[in-house]
Amino acid sequence: MTFSRTATTFPPPVMEARRWLDGVDFSDRPLINVSQAAPVDPPPLALRQELARIVVEDDESHLYGPVLGLPFLRERVALDWSAAYGGSISDDNVAITSGCNQAFTAAIATLCAEGDEVILPVPYYFNHRMWLDMAGVTTVPLTAQAGLIPSAEDAAHLITDKTRAIVLVTPNNPGGVEYPAETVQAFADLARRCGVALIIDETYRDFDSRTGAPHPLFCDPEWGDTLIQLYSFSKAYRLTGHRIGAMIASTERLREVEKFLDTVTICPNQLGQRAALWGMENLGEWLAGERLEILDRRAAIEEQMPRLAEKGWQLEGCGAYFAYLRHPFPLPSDELARVLVRDAGVLTLPGTFFMPQSGGTQHLRIAFANVDRAAITTLFDRLAAFQPS
Amino acid sequence: MTFSRTATTFPPPVMEARRWLDGVDFSDRPLINVSQAAPVDPPPLALRQELARIVVEDDESHLYGPVLGLPFLRERVALDWSAAYGGSISDDNVAITSGCNQAFTAAIATLCAEGDEVILPVPYYFNHRMWLDMAGVTTVPLTAQAGLIPSAEDAAHLITDKTRAIVLVTPNNPGGVEYPAETVQAFADLARRCGVALIIDETYRDFDSRTGAPHPLFCDPEWGDTLIQLYSFSKAYRLTGHRIGAMIASTERLREVEKFLDTVTICPNQLGQRAALWGMENLGEWLAGERLEILDRRAAIEEQMPRLAEKGWQLEGCGAYFAYLRHPFPLPSDELARVLVRDAGVLTLPGTFFMPQSGGTQHLRIAFANVDRAAITTLFDRLAAFQPS
Repeated sequence: MTFSRTATTFPPPVMEARRWLDGVDFSDRPLINVSQAAPVDPPPLALRQELARIVVEDDESHLYGPVLGLPFLRERVALDWSAAYGGSISDDNVAITSGCNQAFTAAIATLCAEGDEVILPVPYYFNHRMWLDMAGVTTVPLTAQAGLIPSAEDAAHLITDKTRAIVLVTPNNPGGVEYPAETVQAFADLARRCGVALIIDETYRDFDSRTGAPHPLFCDPEWGDTLIQLYSFSKAYRLTGHRIGAMIASTERLREVEKFLDTVTICPNQLGQRAALWGMENLGEWLAGERLEILDRRAAIEEQMPRLAEKGWQLEGCGAYFAYLRHPFPLPSDELARVLVRDAGVLTLPGTFFMPQSGGTQHLRIAFANVDRAAITTLFDRLAAFQPS
Repeated sequence: MTFSRTATTFPPPVMEARRWLDGVDFSDRPLINVSQAAPVDPPPLALRQELARIVVEDDESHLYGPVLGLPFLRERVALDWSAAYGGSISDDNVAITSGCNQAFTAAIATLCAEGDEVILPVPYYFNHRMWLDMAGVTTVPLTAQAGLIPSAEDAAHLITDKTRAIVLVTPNNPGGVEYPAETVQAFADLARRCGVALIIDETYRDFDSRTGAPHPLFCDPEWGDTLIQLYSFSKAYRLTGHRIGAMIASTERLREVEKFLDTVTICPNQLGQRAALWGMENLGEWLAGERLEILDRRAAIEEQMPRLAEKGWQLEGCGAYFAYLRHPFPLPSDELARVLVRDAGVLTLPGTFFMPQSGGTQHLRIAFANVDRAAITTLFDRLAAFQPS
């Protein structure tokens, strides 16, 4: 029996981490699960009620649609993006995908062949690494500078004739950090100079602490030569279970993307697309409130940090949904994460999931968006009290 | 700009065919669209009402779920399949996917690396070919015998040390034919003997004209060594827009599949899975009626055929959703299909979409499941009256 493309990569970290819960008793001390970047509540009732109307009344919501997505949704994204980024983005620059992960896989399929290289700042989002592995593409890790911000200058040294893309995730997963506009621009300049693509995953853009456009890349009328932007509707409208994301790219590239998406899923599911559209049309104010709530949770993390710092912990990055912590213990983070489940009732993801082999042993990712201020306090109580036995 | 994996394959045929409609006026003669295997009606009202209840009341239906699918749905598939095929299929042998296309891509990812080979009987399902192209896998075409039935003996001559799988689609797309149980068994024996996988896509199983299990492969307790079965909920319960399919395979293989699915979509959408489960639990009788309706449409095709046969057309295969016709005209089928849109108000897919380059010029696929008896009569009126100018 041969296991080929999939044999090149590791098992899904989130599923692996879930298995650490097996057989652990949480009856005395309820688990604090900060492992996955996933809202724990459903979307607002008004959206759910609208979906209830749609499933009964709108026949099309059950049938195949265009590969690149619902025209109204593409149009709405194009309008909102043009306004938000101050650039010119047309419907034909927007593809709707079955989640943002799929947008990444499709982008890579249009860019890379066997043996090509893609530069990923570390710590990276593990699903990016997994797809590159399975696509036969070499991940070239780019070590971040202080504060988890990568440097275009460093990246320039890594570019070879096999490099096809540089990937940025901002606000970052797992690091939480928001890349400064100048950093993003420097990467775009480098990418253009070297004739490689810049993939910028903005899944967490709705929770950026900065107001206004986080980067000026779409203001360049030639942005489509270099830029591929990825987005998710999952976090903004709590639609993780509906699997709806987007890619913003040149029309030529989307013609290639269409081949991939058609073959992998035929079309994004119709109901999720209608949920995303209704969200964009009606939940702007609600989303603004959600953002403030997430920013308040981020503030709570920062407020709680001193008592962990006393014990030797460090907060290396914090923002969007994530805090990236350096722990003070003499055991690798994947072991520590397991011990924390059993001895502290806390499920985090270890840094080893976000690094090439042999890295990440000192870090834990905390997806704090899933827990409120009270739970954050309890989380820090437990971490502060913890000592490995 | 480089376009790599996607550059190895052709644009989505269904989308290309849709573009042939652009600028054609159908006001006098409504289009008969027999291009895509897609129900034109939504699922039954009771299912839609159940979904309306779920979206409001079931929070989990909006949130991430397990990569390999909803446990209840996996369990139900395992139970029904064990009964239907007379074999032993457990929950752990079932993965739920975002449509059956995705099940195919995942299966190939677990089997093949760059440069490997997969045997596809021709005419093949174009999305299978497209994925093999994009995965860097060589499609080895297997010419069918009379009646569009491929032979395991012929396939044996095509096996090399790079062969990783043989793919059967039964009932067949595009050919419509139901492969005899002995044919399927012969391919399974060949696959096992040669240590390659047998992928059997049974998307149209619910519309097979035969009763009972269409093949005995699951009765072999060692089926998991060789067999990978693919299924779609789209046709049975009219859920094409929800993107829900399944793979039945060994537990070891599903551990590999999990890596691929996690990376490409994280999980199948939650609502579609609930729709599929409710369908399996409640729509058995309704589906039996749907099957009879489809079989009646198939009978209508056969009844109408003589008047086309007089003009030199031949019915090469008919069953499930499809009729595969040989046309009598001295022009390639892709040109003919375009002319038929304009001059006969009929959208079919040409045989060129289902064959390697240079084949398929004599054939048209008619997805007759989409049209009732009256429309089938009109379709044949138009085809019988047609002469290329």
